[in-house]
Amino acid sequence: MSKKYVYLFKEGSKDMRALLGGKGANLAEMTRIGLPVPQGMTITTEACNDFFDQGNQLPEGLLDEVWKNLTTVEEQTGKKFGDAKNPLLVSVRSGAAISMPGMMDTVLNLGLNDETVKGFAALTNDERFALDCYRRFIQMYANVVMGIDGYKFDQIIERIKSDQGVEVDYELNPDHLRQLIEQYKALVKKEAGQDFPQEPSEQLVLAISAVFESWGNPRAIVYRQINRIPDDIGTAVNIQSMVYGNMGNTSGTGVAFTRNPATGARELYGEYLINAQGEDVVAGIRTPHHISELEKELPEAFKQFTDTCSLLENHYKDMQDIEFTIENGSLFILQTRNAKRTTQAAVRSAVEMVKEGLITRDEAVARIDAYQLDQLLHPSIDPKADLDVMTKGLPASPGAAAGSIVFTADEAEAKGKAGEKVILVRNETTPDDIHGMVMSQGVLTSRGGMTSHAAVVARGMGTPCVCGCEGIKVDLDKKVIQVGDLTLAEGDIITIDGSTGNVIKGEVPVIPPVISDYFQQILDWCAEIADEGGMNVHANADTPADARKALEFGARGIGLCRTEHMFMQVDRLPYVQEMILAENADQRRAPLEHLLKFQQEDFVGILDAMAGHPTTIRLLDPPLHEFLPNMENLMLEINDMKHTGADAKVIAEKEDLLRKVRGLHEANPMLGHRGCRLGITYPDVYRMQARAILNATAELIKQGKDIHVEIEIPLVIDPKEVAILRAEIDDVAKEVSAEMGMEIPYKVGAMLELPRACLGCDALTEHCDFFTFGTNDLTQTTLGFSRDDAEGKFLPIYIEQKILKENPFAVLDKHVAELVALAVQKGRSVKPDISFGICGEHGGDPASVAKCHEAGLTFVSCSPYRVPIAIVAAAQAQIKSPRQ
Amino acid sequence: MSKKYVYLFKEGSKDMRALLGGKGANLAEMTRIGLPVPQGMTITTEACNDFFDQGNQLPEGLLDEVWKNLTTVEEQTGKKFGDAKNPLLVSVRSGAAISMPGMMDTVLNLGLNDETVKGFAALTNDERFALDCYRRFIQMYANVVMGIDGYKFDQIIERIKSDQGVEVDYELNPDHLRQLIEQYKALVKKEAGQDFPQEPSEQLVLAISAVFESWGNPRAIVYRQINRIPDDIGTAVNIQSMVYGNMGNTSGTGVAFTRNPATGARELYGEYLINAQGEDVVAGIRTPHHISELEKELPEAFKQFTDTCSLLENHYKDMQDIEFTIENGSLFILQTRNAKRTTQAAVRSAVEMVKEGLITRDEAVARIDAYQLDQLLHPSIDPKADLDVMTKGLPASPGAAAGSIVFTADEAEAKGKAGEKVILVRNETTPDDIHGMVMSQGVLTSRGGMTSHAAVVARGMGTPCVCGCEGIKVDLDKKVIQVGDLTLAEGDIITIDGSTGNVIKGEVPVIPPVISDYFQQILDWCAEIADEGGMNVHANADTPADARKALEFGARGIGLCRTEHMFMQVDRLPYVQEMILAENADQRRAPLEHLLKFQQEDFVGILDAMAGHPTTIRLLDPPLHEFLPNMENLMLEINDMKHTGADAKVIAEKEDLLRKVRGLHEANPMLGHRGCRLGITYPDVYRMQARAILNATAELIKQGKDIHVEIEIPLVIDPKEVAILRAEIDDVAKEVSAEMGMEIPYKVGAMLELPRACLGCDALTEHCDFFTFGTNDLTQTTLGFSRDDAEGKFLPIYIEQKILKENPFAVLDKHVAELVALAVQKGRSVKPDISFGICGEHGGDPASVAKCHEAGLTFVSCSPYRVPIAIVAAAQAQIKSPRQ
Repeated sequence: MSKKYVYLFKEGSKDMRALLGGKGANLAEMTRIGLPVPQGMTITTEACNDFFDQGNQLPEGLLDEVWKNLTTVEEQTGKKFGDAKNPLLVSVRSGAAISMPGMMDTVLNLGLNDETVKGFAALTNDERFALDCYRRFIQMYANVVMGIDGYKFDQIIERIKSDQGVEVDYELNPDHLRQLIEQYKALVKKEAGQDFPQEPSEQLVLAISAVFESWGNPRAIVYRQINRIPDDIGTAVNIQSMVYGNMGNTSGTGVAFTRNPATGARELYGEYLINAQGEDVVAGIRTPHHISELEKELPEAFKQFTDTCSLLENHYKDMQDIEFTIENGSLFILQTRNAKRTTQAAVRSAVEMVKEGLITRDEAVARIDAYQLDQLLHPSIDPKADLDVMTKGLPASPGAAAGSIVFTADEAEAKGKAGEKVILVRNETTPDDIHGMVMSQGVLTSRGGMTSHAAVVARGMGTPCVCGCEGIKVDLDKKVIQVGDLTLAEGDIITIDGSTGNVIKGEVPVIPPVISDYFQQILDWCAEIADEGGMNVHANADTPADARKALEFGARGIGLCRTEHMFMQVDRLPYVQEMILAENADQRRAPLEHLLKFQQEDFVGILDAMAGHPTTIRLLDPPLHEFLPNMENLMLEINDMKHTGADAKVIAEKEDLLRKVRGLHEANPMLGHRGCRLGITYPDVYRMQARAILNATAELIKQGKDIHVEIEIPLVIDPKEVAILRAEIDDVAKEVSAEMGMEIPYKVGAMLELPRACLGCDALTEHCDFFTFGTNDLTQTTLGFSRDDAEGKFLPIYIEQKILKENPFAVLDKHVAELVALAVQKGRSVKPDISFGICGEHGGDPASVAKCHEAGLTFVSCSPYRVPIAIVAAAQAQIKSPRQ
Repeated sequence: MSKKYVYLFKEGSKDMRALLGGKGANLAEMTRIGLPVPQGMTITTEACNDFFDQGNQLPEGLLDEVWKNLTTVEEQTGKKFGDAKNPLLVSVRSGAAISMPGMMDTVLNLGLNDETVKGFAALTNDERFALDCYRRFIQMYANVVMGIDGYKFDQIIERIKSDQGVEVDYELNPDHLRQLIEQYKALVKKEAGQDFPQEPSEQLVLAISAVFESWGNPRAIVYRQINRIPDDIGTAVNIQSMVYGNMGNTSGTGVAFTRNPATGARELYGEYLINAQGEDVVAGIRTPHHISELEKELPEAFKQFTDTCSLLENHYKDMQDIEFTIENGSLFILQTRNAKRTTQAAVRSAVEMVKEGLITRDEAVARIDAYQLDQLLHPSIDPKADLDVMTKGLPASPGAAAGSIVFTADEAEAKGKAGEKVILVRNETTPDDIHGMVMSQGVLTSRGGMTSHAAVVARGMGTPCVCGCEGIKVDLDKKVIQVGDLTLAEGDIITIDGSTGNVIKGEVPVIPPVISDYFQQILDWCAEIADEGGMNVHANADTPADARKALEFGARGIGLCRTEHMFMQVDRLPYVQEMILAENADQRRAPLEHLLKFQQEDFVGILDAMAGHPTTIRLLDPPLHEFLPNMENLMLEINDMKHTGADAKVIAEKEDLLRKVRGLHEANPMLGHRGCRLGITYPDVYRMQARAILNATAELIKQGKDIHVEIEIPLVIDPKEVAILRAEIDDVAKEVSAEMGMEIPYKVGAMLELPRACLGCDALTEHCDFFTFGTNDLTQTTLGFSRDDAEGKFLPIYIEQKILKENPFAVLDKHVAELVALAVQKGRSVKPDISFGICGEHGGDPASVAKCHEAGLTFVSCSPYRVPIAIVAAAQAQIKSPRQ
């Protein structure tokens, strides 16, 4: 017969995964590259399929191959299967091509019986250990092969321990164990109606069948269904010689990393025990030594081990986490895998491996976990500090912050300006609170999710934030918060950790973030690679401080400067309200004049900071009622005044205000009178903004600055909107040019944030110099999800029930990405070189950045604190599928 | 030279529009088919272009052709240009290929001078008329050709009229006119520095140049810019012999229709005057006679005219509106065009023309104006009634209704149930008002547009509605409305006309709608044609009454049965609220049991009415807070209670309710927790509805009824939603099947109303038996327009500024249509035969129906009262671009 059912480890390689399973291929690969792996053989997945095809019979010829190969393994190990003096013991394990951890069966120490256990005791010089192996083998074999419930064995051992007054298993002495083994064998006879098999070859044959059969056990079937693993790929069976580290003072066991997993430094890092098995380390009876000491105890084995470490790093081109055993001076590698490491260590080791020539620049970049980088960009709690964690919320904006509790944005602003460190605590925040959030060290809310207003704004500002912390009850009237039995008042100090969600009593030391030289090297490489792909990273910034921070972190421009945050500041809000409440353009003139001055100052500040870089300024976007007093509060206030007999004139004034507020009230403000719809209905407001921008530009150019300003029209749906508003901007530009006696360079573009804008992008392109996608709003409209409502209500259930894999406001939804790609394609069909950027939360999310790369975007824009992450993500996307 | 610059009318045809202009081609066509048209010639548009190319010089050879052709016209008319006794007079008119009404110049009666006017007086036997023609000619010529302002001539005639004590022009006698002519000529000499040209050939040459030049006058240039007409197509010039109906008793003039334009009956309809010009009819001095009397007065001319009418109908295959003049017994057709007619007449004439073999079935259908049909489907104000129209609003839902004023939905329901006819008057309506709207004869609101809640719901119900009537002030406290100075109280009678927007004092007689035999014939043909195209018409209906009305009007099924209107009824609302306010599934059980009974009754009613037809029932869709008390009112109520010292326990209960209402409150309910998101979070509610539907189905099948029920899942975005909810429905179906001991046939489908559902329709198709588009919501999300907010705020401005051509909630937007077509294409790529319908306002709009046809939909669904219109629109779409 032509089929080869069994492969020695030395006959396989990692490419034979389908035939040998994952474990078998890996053991073969380690053997192939010269690692000292305990030898053995793999029975193929084909044998498994034939086994089932033939009604659970081992296929003909299989056992012949097993016995033949076993002879080779005996030669390799110098031991003999079933030999009373020098017995070869083996493990029998499943191993499919796709990992199914814990779903199938394993038998260890196979080959032990009443005779070989004595030889094994002599070899290991540890009778207790040998007997313990034997009793474990009986239980495991009886369970896996003979189908006897494990708890019946547990009952016996518990009874003996109790009889002997012994607490833990390893306190059982050889006499106890011998007694136990007899009782185990009796149990087997009673349950199975036959003796426990003493013949090793019989043990092996039955164990192979049992492992094959475990492919069909119910939990394995369910696991395959859930993970969509085909039923017909079968499992391989690995028969591997056992090795032992407790065979005397030239034996031992240990675990080591090829580099320091905490710092990344190139130094062997790990620990070992002489004359011990792995479980001795776990049991914690003896204290292991640092790996470097092995050199003194077993210099040859140490040399062999360090050589192996180099070999493994060179082979896998990554830091390895290695388990080893030394049996009578011989080193065996039991497992090697890429090491888990801290973000710092990942960064340093990647950079150093490039310098060492081990990996390329692109390999180094590709292996950074962009999500984890966030840890390096925010202040963090000093790991040495003792923490009194009171409760926990959602880790909404990373970083740690301490300060005294305040309950309103106004208080936050007042105290913040006075230099006090404050934490703003609210049930939830609204756009009215922004002036207070700006002046707070951190924000804590009792409601709202990862994309609630507080979370989004805080992340944008880089301010630590813990959201949806249901463990605290905020009582605004009494100005206290209740945390369990604890009551904290205004002014009490708390610390929040926006990376973990912890809310901590008192002030805790925090460590500021530093971009290390290693990290900077990675960022420099990433910027190079991203440039090669033609997609770079801009930042969303509304203030000169944010703009400078963004440049420091590597941003190449501002992708979104929102003008409305400027409107919210206390010195401007009265003029904004006067403008809104005006009955006509005449009445709007005076407040617009005031706002012009403020806005011009703002823009001078930002454009100056961004000299030499493109800066996209978005014209006013939110609905006007966001700048007015809250309608409900106003209604209640008037009602109160009526009941308490206040002055009729004052009431009438308030009622007039209420009438206007009500007039601006909307059923669905998200889909209402906002964005460029305001520009169409109040052209004078957009003209004021255009003038402020162009005045600022002219002023800076006169100072010799290199200004690249881009004026952006939000929420467009139709080319006619852009045509009308662009004409207004061009007209203002002509006026300013004439007044200043100079040409003013500027671009005009549109924000694509509604499906219609994406679908009709070709027609829009005629009137635009550039585009950016507002994917927050595009997600809201494409999915019909109001972010404010979805987060708190049905979205968590949608994610829990796996209707959506991820929060679409955090990771770009595939159909939103489809609209983005469609718009790019349509726009470039008209102007092949037109720039498309993305701003909003998605611009700082690595998975979304990859989708932007795929869609052909020119840049992604995110909050300054996410810029390094976006740069890494952009580079990784380019490495994975190069665009140019 | 090879270019032919001048064509006699008889040399051209309607196909030579580019060369001869629209008017010239039409005169040629009428000549070609043998109509007695006053003869003449057309100078080509090429000549015009050459004129401009050569610096405003008439091209060489042009005049030779004019004189040669003029000889032919003299022969045709038996008159001679410039002859003192029998002068040929001509008109000189512009006429471009694309009509530019009134933009260019015309000269009439050219050829008159001091001599020919005498011959003309003798010929017409009317010296006054001849002189009047002459003085008009001088003014017109002096203005057009010599550039003298017309008002200078007007000053002269006014002075003479005042001197002579004469009121109107036609009272001037020949002496006055002679005096006038002398003064006109003197004015010409003074202004132009030369005499008025007496030589007719000179008159003609200068007139031709002047008409060419008028192509370049400023208003013509602007008109072309606005209407995107190229500047280089030029105008033709038509030189046509003048004819006169005032040449004695064998002359006359008149206007007639080939059929009755009011009723459509096949009878000549019109009037004439003997020995008169058209302006005599206009002036109203003499009373014209009915056209039939012409037979007695001028039998030959009458015979010639009736023959001409037949010829024209046969040629144009449509009812004609014909202007004619009889000059000395000879009939001349001055103009013919398709006649304007009433909707009744359009329907009847179309049907009869098919019966006569004049046009085909498809031609008859194609010519119906589907929009106008609406007039025939609603009660209308008796045209004979005297109306006291108080004010006018938007004609939001057609039909007339009279009743007494009520101000709340509860009153409307109470009085309506008591048999009183009421008109519900509100500032605006909300879903809370539906139970009152149902019981009202009509609805009148002071706010809101054509697609406000009141308008949409009223149209759906077929209830007359006038919206946004700003002329009325509603004072709910005093229960009065103020209309100007007039105050009307609750109980006062008014009539509203939803077809015109009129609000009328008192009760006015109304005429009920009848579908005439002619209309029915059209509908039958349309249904045939629509069937050939594979797209038929369903109705949106929530009650058995609506379902029956829909079938009567020709619907083939119900495309949308909304279950939430059932929830709003007073006997159910308490259980609905109990269900909503329940803290968990246990507490929801009891109210759901009650609702199950109600819903089952509802569904038995509707499904019974629709036996034999598919009926799509949509599961609960609106956000739950729509069923709860208004949050603001509740806040104020509690505040009032606190101020007035109400019982603390009662306050606490109200506050508890407020807390729950607030918990369900949403920032953007349109994008919130609604549609199938309710089904996912409250599966027991959807299970109750599925059970009610399937119980009802089983009950009716047991009675031998043929039931085709389709259960629809609203607001889906992802196949997993459908998979989960379909599994629930299937599970309920198994339960019901087991209980009833029978298989229950049903389909499950999804409503596509969000962009993501359209983009991912291929994946949805796997789980669906059918789809319908909810284009109202799809429009809201694709454009980012909240209908409630857009209508009252920026949408009117968008339409006024032509940013959008039409209201996208009335006529399907092109990019929404793009998503619809994309979804159909994706869905059919998976299941080629799957059904796609559309429901919502667009289903009853003819332009939108055409887009649905193009997108490949299976049906359109609209309110019962729009079904006939939709059937006609569907047939017309199929005729215009056949689908199969």
